[in-house]
Amino acid sequence: MHLFFQPDFSSISALTDDEAFHAAKVLRLREGETVQVTDGQGSWYDAQVRQSTPKRCDLQILKQTTYEPRPYSIEIALAPTKNIDRIEWFVEKATEMGMDKISFFYTKHSERRTIKLDRLQKIAVSAMKQSLQAYLPQLEEVGDFEKWLPKASEATAQKFIAHLPDDVLPPHLLKSALPKQNYLVLIGPEGDFTTKEIELTQQLGFQMAVLGNTRLRTETAALVACQTLHLVNIP
Amino acid sequence: MHLFFQPDFSSISALTDDEAFHAAKVLRLREGETVQVTDGQGSWYDAQVRQSTPKRCDLQILKQTTYEPRPYSIEIALAPTKNIDRIEWFVEKATEMGMDKISFFYTKHSERRTIKLDRLQKIAVSAMKQSLQAYLPQLEEVGDFEKWLPKASEATAQKFIAHLPDDVLPPHLLKSALPKQNYLVLIGPEGDFTTKEIELTQQLGFQMAVLGNTRLRTETAALVACQTLHLVNIP
Repeated sequence: MHLFFQPDFSSISALTDDEAFHAAKVLRLREGETVQVTDGQGSWYDAQVRQSTPKRCDLQILKQTTYEPRPYSIEIALAPTKNIDRIEWFVEKATEMGMDKISFFYTKHSERRTIKLDRLQKIAVSAMKQSLQAYLPQLEEVGDFEKWLPKASEATAQKFIAHLPDDVLPPHLLKSALPKQNYLVLIGPEGDFTTKEIELTQQLGFQMAVLGNTRLRTETAALVACQTLHLVNIP
Repeated sequence: MHLFFQPDFSSISALTDDEAFHAAKVLRLREGETVQVTDGQGSWYDAQVRQSTPKRCDLQILKQTTYEPRPYSIEIALAPTKNIDRIEWFVEKATEMGMDKISFFYTKHSERRTIKLDRLQKIAVSAMKQSLQAYLPQLEEVGDFEKWLPKASEATAQKFIAHLPDDVLPPHLLKSALPKQNYLVLIGPEGDFTTKEIELTQQLGFQMAVLGNTRLRTETAALVACQTLHLVNIP
């Protein structure tokens, strides 16, 4: 059955914009056909087409299913890579695995200073549908790392930075993360964080964590962190 | 420092083929310069250029470091995806994380029946260098799934299949995998295994395992399996 994404579906019972166009022009849905809709916020609907135009597809809700959020949340914050393809696949894969928030910051060593959030958003929507999930991760461009970090660190329960200091190896993320927490993990740029940036994370209480025995690219490290935190929560 | 891959380096002390060409024509290495070489089988060399031509770059070994293999091994066997890009990134990411063997099989529902092993091999070499590892995963096209499986299953200690039966949910891979084993994990094609193929795995003693709470694409499932097995072995 065709699956659509409509964030405000509970209030409008219709598809709009791209989803309405896709329903009318590509799938040529007719009155009486049934479809599925997710609002990306935990609700999943079976619905029947009442009227389909390229601008708006009115639907009648047949059944609503609400999914509880996970008992933990994962936010990964990272510097976009020079080659944006790498970020795009991270967004796709992290959404498939389950992710609550992805934040993009810019550091002193960031090689890229802009991203197209719209495009990443579409990739996340597509991956959410593909993996049949009812929650869409929130994507945000948060700007300058040092300005953003103090605000970001206030709200979070367990805060990590994927960083290897020169002296003592910190514990593996699997060992230092506790189950059922809200996690925030910082992943550095390709040129790594500066000493000053690292110091700021330490002042704000971020724990250093190892992600494995090999040197990982930015986007691989981000995905490994996400998967590790899911596994911390396997009962 | 420049890092090269030369599988038979201990016997020839030289770079050949593409690596020799790259050294001479792209990097324009001169006599006396120092480089690093890995043989992909656990050895890592510091070496000095004696003579560099586009066909052969003779090196003098200054230092040899040998890395112990991990106390476990991971083989992931999967059906190549229709879109080969997805397999290419799996090979890259799995190599970064650490992988011993990737086997490609063809099943009844396989949408793709050929792969370019040479190209995947180059991706693995590049990822091995990028992540500064001394071991290169072995890549193999093993052909028909049902013919290959009985042979493959003989040699392996812990055998899993990522499959969800309709009735009872099997345990998560994190819970059923024991540390310090040789693992073989089967990942199905985009159209899933057939009932007959599943039955064969059960006759041969493969344990069904869950990889997470979401529906994962073939290549994502393969990567999640790899990462999960690494985490089983975190002391």
